[in-house]
Amino acid sequence: MINLPRGTQDILPGESEKWQYLEQKFIELCSRYNYKEIRTPIFEHTEVFQRGVGDTTDIVQKEMYTFTDRGDRQLTLRPEGTASVARAYVQHKLHGQVKQPQKLFYHGPMFRYERPQAGRMRQFVQFGIEALGSADPAIDAEVIDFAMTLYQSLGLKSLRLVINTLGDQESRTAHREALINHFTPVKDELCSDCQVRLDKNPLRVLDCKRDHDHPSMASAPKILDFLTEDSRIYFEQVKKYLDELGIEYVVDPNLVRGLDYYNHTAFEIMSEAEGFGAITTLSGGGRFNGLIEELDGPATPGIGFALSVERFLLALDAEGIELPVEQSLDAYIVALGEEAELKASGLMKNLRAAGLQADKDFLAKKMKAQFKAADRENAKFVLIIGDQELEEEVVLIKEMASGTQEAVPFDSIINYIKERL
Amino acid sequence: MINLPRGTQDILPGESEKWQYLEQKFIELCSRYNYKEIRTPIFEHTEVFQRGVGDTTDIVQKEMYTFTDRGDRQLTLRPEGTASVARAYVQHKLHGQVKQPQKLFYHGPMFRYERPQAGRMRQFVQFGIEALGSADPAIDAEVIDFAMTLYQSLGLKSLRLVINTLGDQESRTAHREALINHFTPVKDELCSDCQVRLDKNPLRVLDCKRDHDHPSMASAPKILDFLTEDSRIYFEQVKKYLDELGIEYVVDPNLVRGLDYYNHTAFEIMSEAEGFGAITTLSGGGRFNGLIEELDGPATPGIGFALSVERFLLALDAEGIELPVEQSLDAYIVALGEEAELKASGLMKNLRAAGLQADKDFLAKKMKAQFKAADRENAKFVLIIGDQELEEEVVLIKEMASGTQEAVPFDSIINYIKERL
Repeated sequence: MINLPRGTQDILPGESEKWQYLEQKFIELCSRYNYKEIRTPIFEHTEVFQRGVGDTTDIVQKEMYTFTDRGDRQLTLRPEGTASVARAYVQHKLHGQVKQPQKLFYHGPMFRYERPQAGRMRQFVQFGIEALGSADPAIDAEVIDFAMTLYQSLGLKSLRLVINTLGDQESRTAHREALINHFTPVKDELCSDCQVRLDKNPLRVLDCKRDHDHPSMASAPKILDFLTEDSRIYFEQVKKYLDELGIEYVVDPNLVRGLDYYNHTAFEIMSEAEGFGAITTLSGGGRFNGLIEELDGPATPGIGFALSVERFLLALDAEGIELPVEQSLDAYIVALGEEAELKASGLMKNLRAAGLQADKDFLAKKMKAQFKAADRENAKFVLIIGDQELEEEVVLIKEMASGTQEAVPFDSIINYIKERL
Repeated sequence: MINLPRGTQDILPGESEKWQYLEQKFIELCSRYNYKEIRTPIFEHTEVFQRGVGDTTDIVQKEMYTFTDRGDRQLTLRPEGTASVARAYVQHKLHGQVKQPQKLFYHGPMFRYERPQAGRMRQFVQFGIEALGSADPAIDAEVIDFAMTLYQSLGLKSLRLVINTLGDQESRTAHREALINHFTPVKDELCSDCQVRLDKNPLRVLDCKRDHDHPSMASAPKILDFLTEDSRIYFEQVKKYLDELGIEYVVDPNLVRGLDYYNHTAFEIMSEAEGFGAITTLSGGGRFNGLIEELDGPATPGIGFALSVERFLLALDAEGIELPVEQSLDAYIVALGEEAELKASGLMKNLRAAGLQADKDFLAKKMKAQFKAADRENAKFVLIIGDQELEEEVVLIKEMASGTQEAVPFDSIINYIKERL
């Protein structure tokens, strides 16, 4: 037997309805917030991620599915959505459109070669939004509001919103120097990755999973002490908007993001539900004013966020929330005999054409087994047709909730059912 | 600038709504016909397709995106959906469930390395359904009915349904021998691919694009002349069901399918719309009673079909059908001044929480430009808030259709708009 590749999953009926439900809720919220869908390919030229995610990140260095196609192009399965959206924004010159910011959403599979565990799959699904073309703190707050509202609208309560600012370029340069000065004396005690990071991108040392508890971490210089006046004011305004929107948050000066292109606002949403598991981050996002330029577009501010659907479902589970995805059928047709079977197919087509959910047996089962199947399908009405009914041009319709049964002429079936639904 | 990979496309706002619309229609029809969603990974172990699609097919030999991952697994981006669904059916022992047939649907991207042209992309999107576990001709008819109904429900008229039978194993063996005898004398005149096919899978010679006009084609032995009695009766019954459902079809004895695992019923739906383009096939499907066994499951009959969304959209275009995907907003807020901006964000959050689609400016535009933006967004109501309104705790609401304008207290805004929508 051939199994599916490690770190991937099949989503079967019974589960898939939950994914559909979350997708619908996400798309509906995008519509209310006026974000429009963009669909980019599953794979991109590798360079998109090398430049758009950043050469020094774990994603690009260790986790990408990269391959050459039959035309010798180097391609990579997208590890996240933002770089692709930014590439499309530049390629299609969306910066030239009158409407700015471009408020975009996407959803679909992403790919990272990591060690699989609960909430971390090699193929995982993200919902994300991006607002490209505005540097208004109001839109930072809108993106955070969108994320929190999506979770809350599904009933999640044990959420923790953490925000920080990474400042502008000037702030980051000053902070970077301070970090190098701080960690260089203890460089030998850090992991080999961090020793490289310290040269290339010292901010990412703060993000290290292995050195997380090293004593130098707690005393590391904080970005908040190096903010330029502009950056400080920007962050204050974002907080003012969050306050206006009634959104609670915690400022965590150690919150940095694994991706190089972030600046100013960064945020993460965590589940604090008991038993949620080791990975508590549900989603994250932030501002990336340098990204579009990095991909050869004009200087363009941007902010976005992405969530993992797998973790969304885990969080719902952890809080005991059941999604309303019960399945039922309007009508199940029980047919007996060859001619009745044929007629049943025609009647079923008519029911479906009238917008009703209908099914029948396709295994030539006995009557009793067909009734069992109707039960299993949660059918509201069972339509029975045999030789006698065929001759009289009626079906017996049994309403399952009440148990009432009536003979109904062929041409009145749809009205009969619709009136009683 | 980095462009997207050849043969792929971005689907931008303005277009993406059409894809969403077709998806919704497809999912809704699946619900009426009682098909449930299954989601399989974007990539599979290559063997799934070598065995499930067939080693002798062009897809497996020439068109797959195959690569090794960091754990040295040989993986392939799925070139179609049926083999993956069959693999999942076996892996999760869906054949052991009481409910049979398992009626499944899927939608998503597929990948084939072909020369791109209109209606043929390297990444393309398929909608598909599969009914696994029934050998009832009624379900062959149901699958065909589903396909035709989906197209017709969107308004397509110039459709041509072609059906054929490929018979059972015994019929195919007899036909195979006759084909070898027929083509062997002219083998040297056929293309090099066909010379190989003639040994390995002579049925596929009939499918060849290059040798299509060779004189030996028209006189080739037809499967219909080699059908066993069982196969003949099965095909007759399928046609009887199609007649009962009022579905018009043409029998084309030369219709074979590129995939090895088909037997009995095969069908294709073509667009006959003028100007549709060179590739007229919109979708195809058929019965594959040997597939589940090929993938190490128990002998299980199955039938399914898949359509290309790209060609669906081309067909709609060719018939001049516009999908009803117009965009509008319920409310656009025009705010003037820093405090009003802040308040506007709060009001907007309330509107959205009430289910309304709302947006505002995020570029600190002047009033006139904000009104223009509201127009561009097709806003039904424009809400105006400046210092004076802030003080009086009202917004001016202008209904764009009627031009009427009223001052409405903050806490009555939602009711005011909802009553007038």
